[in-house]
Amino acid sequence: MKWKEQILNLHAYQPGKSIDAIKREYGLERIVKLASNENPYGCSNKVTEMLNNQTTSNALYPDGYAFDLRMSLATHFQVQPSELIFGNGSDELIQIINSALIKPGTNAVMATPTFSEYQQYTIINGGEAREILLTDKGEHNFTEMLNVIDENTAIVWICNPNNPSGVYMKEEELVAFLEKIPNDILVVIDEAYNEYVVANDYPNTLKLLKRFKNIIMLRTFSKIYGLASFRIGYGVADPSIIKTLEPIRSPFNTNTFAQKAALAALADQEFLEQCKRKNREELEKMYQFLENVGLSYYPTQGNFLLVDFQTDGDQIFQKLLQQGFIVRSGKSLGFPNSVRITIGQAEDMEALRKAIQLILTTV
Amino acid sequence: MKWKEQILNLHAYQPGKSIDAIKREYGLERIVKLASNENPYGCSNKVTEMLNNQTTSNALYPDGYAFDLRMSLATHFQVQPSELIFGNGSDELIQIINSALIKPGTNAVMATPTFSEYQQYTIINGGEAREILLTDKGEHNFTEMLNVIDENTAIVWICNPNNPSGVYMKEEELVAFLEKIPNDILVVIDEAYNEYVVANDYPNTLKLLKRFKNIIMLRTFSKIYGLASFRIGYGVADPSIIKTLEPIRSPFNTNTFAQKAALAALADQEFLEQCKRKNREELEKMYQFLENVGLSYYPTQGNFLLVDFQTDGDQIFQKLLQQGFIVRSGKSLGFPNSVRITIGQAEDMEALRKAIQLILTTV
Repeated sequence: MKWKEQILNLHAYQPGKSIDAIKREYGLERIVKLASNENPYGCSNKVTEMLNNQTTSNALYPDGYAFDLRMSLATHFQVQPSELIFGNGSDELIQIINSALIKPGTNAVMATPTFSEYQQYTIINGGEAREILLTDKGEHNFTEMLNVIDENTAIVWICNPNNPSGVYMKEEELVAFLEKIPNDILVVIDEAYNEYVVANDYPNTLKLLKRFKNIIMLRTFSKIYGLASFRIGYGVADPSIIKTLEPIRSPFNTNTFAQKAALAALADQEFLEQCKRKNREELEKMYQFLENVGLSYYPTQGNFLLVDFQTDGDQIFQKLLQQGFIVRSGKSLGFPNSVRITIGQAEDMEALRKAIQLILTTV
Repeated sequence: MKWKEQILNLHAYQPGKSIDAIKREYGLERIVKLASNENPYGCSNKVTEMLNNQTTSNALYPDGYAFDLRMSLATHFQVQPSELIFGNGSDELIQIINSALIKPGTNAVMATPTFSEYQQYTIINGGEAREILLTDKGEHNFTEMLNVIDENTAIVWICNPNNPSGVYMKEEELVAFLEKIPNDILVVIDEAYNEYVVANDYPNTLKLLKRFKNIIMLRTFSKIYGLASFRIGYGVADPSIIKTLEPIRSPFNTNTFAQKAALAALADQEFLEQCKRKNREELEKMYQFLENVGLSYYPTQGNFLLVDFQTDGDQIFQKLLQQGFIVRSGKSLGFPNSVRITIGQAEDMEALRKAIQLILTTV
């Protein structure tokens, strides 16, 4: 087969063990999954109600325009329907954007470590991924990122707050960066964790979109909205950008249930407020605990926390697994001595702290 | 923006009017949609039962490996789990395959008219689409297709039965063609309508996969299984092909409901048999009618029929719409004087024939 050379060394997703398999292997009754930054409080009851009352035939293709969701989201953000594009998760929008801009000879500039799909799809499309190390504080290094932008740069990726560090960039930093980026480069601002942010100086990207016509903002229903099982995310950008991306989107990319679930979830902003508040409460307890036991971490604006254990992350992962907690080893995330912990419910976090305590005292 | 040149002239999906909007516009009480080759009998009751009893949290990401569905499908076809890949509809597999093989300088060989996404994603990836006109009988022109295959050909696309003509190729024709294709070219055999086929000499592609290691077979749950709303399709190929495609697939591309619905639907083969039988009964009635009124058509192996009205397909579309039937104008499908009609339920097809009769007598 005449495979593209650059795809032959890519790694495929490795399926994790199922929760049932782990229970059997370790003789555990209960497993707490704190690995994928899913919402521990589930999703809005309005979504469950929708599922119970839905009457659309399963045999019909979804609405390719996502009319109802589009109108509702346009009203929610006070943008035009033509400023929106929907994806099978925001993952798919990352693919579509790469597909539209990246070809051999072009490059994309991004941080490292950051969300891995930016780099993966740059490579698949034959471009060069210019990855600039985060600063010691876990921040994007804007100075270095600007240094590597050249006439072949087609995309600049920004993850805010950044996954896996959790660190955010301030509006004034972002604006200063955007002002220096040539306006024929698409700047993607991935705000998957936006709704968890409490910092007052976090950017109002919707406002920035009016000033910088070369931005696309990505958001998702998979995180605080608690709809990861359905797969739906969206992008907001100038209509000229959306119009150019649309032919690359497969017409029926978002499924009927996902559109309906997102519509129902969007109408329950109170649920979001509760999740945001509880997340912050649990984060504060974790900060206190980590300071008490002397472990360092990046202050986070998301629903996850990157903790430096100063030892092999895979080992910590394994030891927590034995106690019934699935976290994410930092090894595959670019932080080999850390683990990334999703902030769960109070009771589970209390138990997690005990599990960590046990590991620290038995080393 | 540094958009790839080749995407700037692509057409995006144009959303059709909603059924409600059409009802209002034409003062109709009921609309019959015979446009997208969906299953008029819905889907298996087992799917509905699954939906009513599903307990997985909506907040959790889907199983990226689709374990349960993979095992069940592997058993169903007597293939290895490693011979399967799942897509967000088989559409997404068309994208993934193009992404893996097509770059500037390569080409893909396909029929025309055929399913438009083969060509669309060849172009998006910077390749050349070599489109060979169907024969007068609506068949793939294998002689001409072989003539344009060269050292830069990375993919050959076969749609069997072909959409929109509905015509199929026989096993002996396919084998003769495959024998002449160099084995470093991936041959994609799209069998979206396979389960509707009644012809005895239709290829057993699962068997051919063992002989020709350069084939990938695509199938879908969107057609006879009646699960178009969920978005799930799959590919079957040698494990070495699947392994190379896997890193391009986004890990959570198929949603939780789609995996569960497909699993439930697969277990009800009796439903498929009923749908296949009724489809054939209704087709025979349509054949008889079209012969009586003197309209020509391609004999079909799918659940749709391409009818030549010898006049502008858009006009026929419009006249049927006024009577409450949504069909597909052949104009955008490469048959400007035809319409493509999905075979619906008996009562609706009876009414459709009256509507066509009315159009023919009032011209």
